[in-house]
Amino acid sequence: MLNRSPAMNEEKVYQEKKIPEDTIIRLSYYLRALIYFLEENKKVVSSRQLAEFLKISHHQLRKDLSYFGHFGKKGVGYSSYELIDRIKEILGLNQQWNVCVVGFGNLGRALSSYKGFRDQGLCIKAAFDVDKNKQNKNYNGIKVYGLDKIQNVIKKENIRIAIITVPKENAKEISNQLYKTGIRAILNFAPVKLSLPQEVILKDVDFSCQLTYLTYRLKLSEKKNF
Amino acid sequence: MLNRSPAMNEEKVYQEKKIPEDTIIRLSYYLRALIYFLEENKKVVSSRQLAEFLKISHHQLRKDLSYFGHFGKKGVGYSSYELIDRIKEILGLNQQWNVCVVGFGNLGRALSSYKGFRDQGLCIKAAFDVDKNKQNKNYNGIKVYGLDKIQNVIKKENIRIAIITVPKENAKEISNQLYKTGIRAILNFAPVKLSLPQEVILKDVDFSCQLTYLTYRLKLSEKKNF
Repeated sequence: MLNRSPAMNEEKVYQEKKIPEDTIIRLSYYLRALIYFLEENKKVVSSRQLAEFLKISHHQLRKDLSYFGHFGKKGVGYSSYELIDRIKEILGLNQQWNVCVVGFGNLGRALSSYKGFRDQGLCIKAAFDVDKNKQNKNYNGIKVYGLDKIQNVIKKENIRIAIITVPKENAKEISNQLYKTGIRAILNFAPVKLSLPQEVILKDVDFSCQLTYLTYRLKLSEKKNF
Repeated sequence: MLNRSPAMNEEKVYQEKKIPEDTIIRLSYYLRALIYFLEENKKVVSSRQLAEFLKISHHQLRKDLSYFGHFGKKGVGYSSYELIDRIKEILGLNQQWNVCVVGFGNLGRALSSYKGFRDQGLCIKAAFDVDKNKQNKNYNGIKVYGLDKIQNVIKKENIRIAIITVPKENAKEISNQLYKTGIRAILNFAPVKLSLPQEVILKDVDFSCQLTYLTYRLKLSEKKNF
């Protein structure tokens, strides 16, 4: 049961609260925006400024942050430094996470060289591909292995998170193989529903869903103009 | 002002309601799940089944759909066919949308060959890249042009949506160029905040945000196990 006793520390409370996935995703966007503000030398930022920058409502922003305690000073705003540190802590980004990419086609290569990861403590340690021509080569410092090496490399490199970019047909088998090696967090780009035990944290990414948000809005704006 | 007169047709009403972006994104996931159910020959599906499949609450599902009218039969469920048609209509996917990709590196190539797009009526008609070695070649049926051809090709091919995958440093200039050609919907993969007029529908995709959802959950589950 959820214990809301004031004696409990904040961190304990938010662990047990049911926090919407969208809130967690938005926290990452707040983090990116705050880093941007800091680069522009804005050391204090109001919820309105942050919300306006991200084109969301400031009520949403305040609601999202309220899950994790109290932030900022009324009438002043948030300290960029403090809020960055706090969000990093909430998201587990105050430590390094080792990641592997399974499937080294165009998307696998694109993700392996994605600069945004390392800034967040996300470190791609290895890639795997079935294609022998890609194996045992280095790509931007990331070594590509055969699929038979999954177990050994994941253990040796202390990899905790796997990104799947293999074709739809192979994704289920790969995800089971990853599960057997102890992987409990998977970002899945293959357009297929993986069936894994409940304990696995699974996030599907579907590019069509991002694009259809645009088609929805385009269609609406066309209707308004008639 | 929002007119809620019962005489208004449903479509008119939802155009004027403020529908959360997350609801629209989730509609795409409902669509994908329904297509999966139909492939498994499930012609009727309950909100609980659909919600369970997507690991969201059925209240959320029902709330999302309620923005767009009444769906399904109480105690029976939704007709997969009907709900697919209706969601496609809402998202504007009952027509073809022509899309271009600007930046033909690994990510650009990966997106150009992404099979999920065409099934949704999203048709990549052209790609653009600054690299002369990539220009005037066909890649999976998609021709790559130089950046100087943006205006002509977008007009000729009736392209309405652009996907930006160029490096951070070039994204702002490219987005302005696209705006001048009449593009009003942009999916931006460059890790930079674009400043475009309000009328442009802009969606940023950040892979770090997807991954940090996993680090958040991993961190939580570790704490629970202590």
